[in-house]
Amino acid sequence: MYDMKEIYEKRRAAMIAWMNENNISAVVFRDFEECRSPSVRYFTGQPTDATFVLSADGSNILIPWDENMAKKMALVDTIIPFTRFERDPVQAVAGALKKLKVPHHTRVEIPGTTTYPEFLHYVDALSEYDVICRENGAVDYATSLRAVKDEYEIACTRKAAAITDALIDSLEAGVRNGTITTETDAALLIERECRKAGCEGTGFDTLAAGPARSFGIHCFPPYTAGAFPAQGLSILDFGVVYQGYTSDVTLTFAKGPLTEAQEKQLELVQKAYDEAVPLYVKDVPVRAAAVKADEVFASGKRSMPHSLGHGIGLECHEAPLVRPKTPAEELLKPGMIVTCEPGLYDENIGGCRLENDILVTEDGNEVLTHARIIRV
Amino acid sequence: MYDMKEIYEKRRAAMIAWMNENNISAVVFRDFEECRSPSVRYFTGQPTDATFVLSADGSNILIPWDENMAKKMALVDTIIPFTRFERDPVQAVAGALKKLKVPHHTRVEIPGTTTYPEFLHYVDALSEYDVICRENGAVDYATSLRAVKDEYEIACTRKAAAITDALIDSLEAGVRNGTITTETDAALLIERECRKAGCEGTGFDTLAAGPARSFGIHCFPPYTAGAFPAQGLSILDFGVVYQGYTSDVTLTFAKGPLTEAQEKQLELVQKAYDEAVPLYVKDVPVRAAAVKADEVFASGKRSMPHSLGHGIGLECHEAPLVRPKTPAEELLKPGMIVTCEPGLYDENIGGCRLENDILVTEDGNEVLTHARIIRV
Repeated sequence: MYDMKEIYEKRRAAMIAWMNENNISAVVFRDFEECRSPSVRYFTGQPTDATFVLSADGSNILIPWDENMAKKMALVDTIIPFTRFERDPVQAVAGALKKLKVPHHTRVEIPGTTTYPEFLHYVDALSEYDVICRENGAVDYATSLRAVKDEYEIACTRKAAAITDALIDSLEAGVRNGTITTETDAALLIERECRKAGCEGTGFDTLAAGPARSFGIHCFPPYTAGAFPAQGLSILDFGVVYQGYTSDVTLTFAKGPLTEAQEKQLELVQKAYDEAVPLYVKDVPVRAAAVKADEVFASGKRSMPHSLGHGIGLECHEAPLVRPKTPAEELLKPGMIVTCEPGLYDENIGGCRLENDILVTEDGNEVLTHARIIRV
Repeated sequence: MYDMKEIYEKRRAAMIAWMNENNISAVVFRDFEECRSPSVRYFTGQPTDATFVLSADGSNILIPWDENMAKKMALVDTIIPFTRFERDPVQAVAGALKKLKVPHHTRVEIPGTTTYPEFLHYVDALSEYDVICRENGAVDYATSLRAVKDEYEIACTRKAAAITDALIDSLEAGVRNGTITTETDAALLIERECRKAGCEGTGFDTLAAGPARSFGIHCFPPYTAGAFPAQGLSILDFGVVYQGYTSDVTLTFAKGPLTEAQEKQLELVQKAYDEAVPLYVKDVPVRAAAVKADEVFASGKRSMPHSLGHGIGLECHEAPLVRPKTPAEELLKPGMIVTCEPGLYDENIGGCRLENDILVTEDGNEVLTHARIIRV
């Protein structure tokens, strides 16, 4: 149905146009354990552990840790195994530039996530080039490309969202019929069913926090053998990955009787959510929804210790970042898929968060998932 | 049984001694999504998402993302929530140095993992200080401290290893009695049982690869709804975390009839393992075992596309790194816990890896886990 080769080429063409405008002869992308960057997957199909070097003339080389995986999954000009460079990242880049015949005395850009000591090694090893390492550079441009999803990405996320919605219903049913009684029960239902539905897995550690632990923004450990849900407020935060694209939702289970303070907290979170969602529309500043949610919480003399939302895609946290300090000139665009996730947390009464994934469209938005506060 | 406050203070004292020897007035440790460093947990007990600033006079400040979690888990002088600094890492460090009264015109060390652009921000914001960012600096010293486990860490790892061994037996039984027929069955047995046994969870994504996928060093996706095991070679790589400390083992399930090439591959891996393990002893170069394993594989005209082993602890991959290019002067020390994991992978016949965790002792070593090649 989708021609992946064409999709990767189109994405690379957008990157190459930027490179030519910015006088960059080659860009290096790296995805390794010490610093993950799914832009490698975005441009090549290789899901993990590789260096990708893209020349401004369009030619390119992938240097994977696992050659067998690359042969099956990557759609690039050339694959050279990392072992060929003694698994040394700087050597690998130097070798790729040579092979691609990138002209000397031109600007080669390495990721802005390169560490300072590593940057010095690149500068040494690539002395024939002008090595660029900066914020708001090539890798950030790739991130901004990724923030606006193409048709294929929207289709993948819709599928992840549909599987998520089915899971939400199964989770609610499981809680009501007593087959889910622990945090582990809830988390493993997600792990099993998402794979049955064809997902790669979960997009991040499922966070299942019974009332004793829901005060944590991200409870630790992520889930335990403890009771879930139980009297009070329980949080369940999860996402499933379809063809690389994750969903990200949070349910709150509220099991009565609740205290007045707990009721008030639920009400504030629901109100913040309801008032924020209509602001996820094109040409509105990204920060507007976050400012609105903070106003709602301030009216209840409470405050939220995290951002209101973030883009989702190949990563569970990507651009844009929905928080009051996002610059006012950053606007929402059609094709962005962004979470809305107001939450309040209290050591004594527990936490509540409500999170769904919102696709910004030409004429408004579409809430792709249907997480909710569930009273049991 | 263990006085955790005393344990953290002892660890910090070792760090402070190094700081004084190296004329460093304060060290910054950071553990955030973009760059994980469990040294924060090592020195404070805070499991995740925090900045820790340690002054050479011993005073210290933790700046957690989640204040509630820190109040329950961190044992430090002072906790200041990250929100106090508008969740800006550079501001947080500047604020902590001021509060700790770290003298101006002294050397303050930030992690060597700091990106080059971020380094420039630190230099700007901390203009009263001499900002140090380097390889083999303070954070690496912390890593080297962590490579040699203290009594508490060995006890935690032993417990993780015992739970792992029980799981290995359950997995073998499940395969033999037919309750495990998919990759998901194997992975979720581990997820459920480890939590029942009191673990925080798994130390990394469980990799369960049936014969169709075992050619990958780290199969992708980590586990699926596909058959496991089936005729041929299947790999199961997992670890469980007890009080922060992970195990890391790999089983191979070999289901006959096997081809001659598959038999030969199993034999080579077992031989490499058997010849390498006796070299995990104190005062022997870390690289020796890796050189030996490579020799075994070369004798069979095969080669291994990854390192032979690595330290385990608060991270699933930590120092030392057992590979031929590790400098010859790096020696194994009592208290190191290191994996031995020879493996061979072939697109046509599948992969085989055998991995266990080895504690280097005063008079030899102790293999803590008992993973094996299982014929079914």
